[in-house]
Amino acid sequence: MSTLSQTAPQAPTDSTGAQAFAGSGENPASTLSATDTARIGILTVSDRAHQGVYEDQSGPAIHATMDDYLSSPWEAVSSLVPDEPSRIREALVELADREHCCLILTTGGTGPAPRDVTPEATEAVCEKMLPGFGERMRAESLRFVPTAILSRQTAGVRGDSLIINLPGKPKAIRECLDAVFGAVPYAIDLIGGPRLETDPDVMPAFRPKAKPEDQ
Amino acid sequence: MSTLSQTAPQAPTDSTGAQAFAGSGENPASTLSATDTARIGILTVSDRAHQGVYEDQSGPAIHATMDDYLSSPWEAVSSLVPDEPSRIREALVELADREHCCLILTTGGTGPAPRDVTPEATEAVCEKMLPGFGERMRAESLRFVPTAILSRQTAGVRGDSLIINLPGKPKAIRECLDAVFGAVPYAIDLIGGPRLETDPDVMPAFRPKAKPEDQ
Amino acid sequence: MSTLSQTAPQAPTDSTGAQAFAGSGENPASTLSATDTARIGILTVSDRAHQGVYEDQSGPAIHATMDDYLSSPWEAVSSLVPDEPSRIREALVELADREHCCLILTTGGTGPAPRDVTPEATEAVCEKMLPGFGERMRAESLRFVPTAILSRQTAGVRGDSLIINLPGKPKAIRECLDAVFGAVPYAIDLIGGPRLETDPDVMPAFRPKAKPEDQ
Repeated sequence: MSTLSQTAPQAPTDSTGAQAFAGSGENPASTLSATDTARIGILTVSDRAHQGVYEDQSGPAIHATMDDYLSSPWEAVSSLVPDEPSRIREALVELADREHCCLILTTGGTGPAPRDVTPEATEAVCEKMLPGFGERMRAESLRFVPTAILSRQTAGVRGDSLIINLPGKPKAIRECLDAVFGAVPYAIDLIGGPRLETDPDVMPAFRPKAKPEDQ
Repeated sequence: MSTLSQTAPQAPTDSTGAQAFAGSGENPASTLSATDTARIGILTVSDRAHQGVYEDQSGPAIHATMDDYLSSPWEAVSSLVPDEPSRIREALVELADREHCCLILTTGGTGPAPRDVTPEATEAVCEKMLPGFGERMRAESLRFVPTAILSRQTAGVRGDSLIINLPGKPKAIRECLDAVFGAVPYAIDLIGGPRLETDPDVMPAFRPKAKPEDQ
Repeated sequence: MSTLSQTAPQAPTDSTGAQAFAGSGENPASTLSATDTARIGILTVSDRAHQGVYEDQSGPAIHATMDDYLSSPWEAVSSLVPDEPSRIREALVELADREHCCLILTTGGTGPAPRDVTPEATEAVCEKMLPGFGERMRAESLRFVPTAILSRQTAGVRGDSLIINLPGKPKAIRECLDAVFGAVPYAIDLIGGPRLETDPDVMPAFRPKAKPEDQ
């Protein structure tokens, strides 16, 4: 079982204990009622952080970025698992189906090394894949490092949850989110999730003005 | 069964009736004999257009674009199906295997919404996939809208038919075709189809000058 | 069975005979002991070269490019097979598992034609795919020819071997390698292979300075 912690001020709903990172820095809006509050899963995939060799910095980096972007109420449901396919899949299913996260952001496990299996675990639990996310994030990271082509990060949809793989390094996490997040609120509209609003000065969300006859 | 209409002046060969859109705007060249005439399938995938909630505008937009591009004789074989995987697959197989379309252009059903299943249906009937089409079309659409990364459009080959997914909106259809069509005549040469000629002022076709020893 | 030839001065270890191309142009460094020497598989996939209709020029073009790039000792293990899925798969497995090549570069068979099956054969023998290579190579080739989108080339990892598909034409091979090789030495580090060093004036290798806490 994955370890989950809800980083809102109220008591965690399913914190099974060890490895969950501290709920610091949460959006004050996450104190609002669940019906108004978007739940966002943050899944850190790391053998070493899971073993306690060092403190997870990637999950908190995602949390801080969401705080920067979002102006509508949200709360994080955080989890930390080792680079094991079954553990990653279970955590994604938990965050999607039982924790009802409209968005799940993973960090780590997207490279070519033998233990890097996050993209395969993601694909295994998704009904449909969104290859444009991986393409766009790699193209963006390529502006900084030639090794960006080694990232296998992808995105997909499970039920009414959008799952996006992010890199392991906090700096690269922000670069990738900056490149794709403008499309995320509309994607969540399309899969039936809550309406996310962003701070337009930090991360303008784009919603096409669809005419009724558009398909 | 999918509903097919051949939009050439001669009587439709397999029009099973309802939902087929009117054969307006066809290329006069499509009156030539079948041996000289390339057949191009145009498959509109849309629940609402299929229900008659509004008139399909996307299929005709593809037709008009082909009229603009092509200088060699061609005729359209048009079809309209709802966003049902089995219906889309059947229509693609019909257009490829029985209607002998060298090129099949789909419109609609490429987004992340639950009913958007055109890419999966395409992959299910193709022997090989051509990921470069989706990459290029998303990169092009990204110049106009950040939500271009949500498109899951792809392309593939079934027998001697090239299948390309296009977006649902007429404006985006033209943008995507403008970005990739220059490679289509050569692709059709390679899979054994008829030689398509284009108006070089509108859409120059590129055919590499292959030396015999090139592999 | 694929035909393999080790193009180092010492006698080929597994040359089963016909079709192996001459071991010309090899890096003098390949005379060093195997423990210091990276083994690089070069697999030409071509019906016509295999039939002897013309001499393979693509394999030697890859060999010459590796000579230009690499400053650390390496030796080529070359093979030539027809465009048959089983023959390509067998050759890849041989180069990876028995010849212990850390890097396998294929040429040919990446287009949409019926006999082009190299990407499928590659995917069939790999545990994980690296879509960023294909994306990057197509984007690079697109600067030269609009038909670059027709290439289906990909890359993947089998055990401790990195497999990369390259186009069939010598000029395009060099363009593609120039676009991606900077990330290859680090990829081989990550999958447990030997340390490749490059001539920084020709092809600078990029290795991110990972902090211990990076995931």
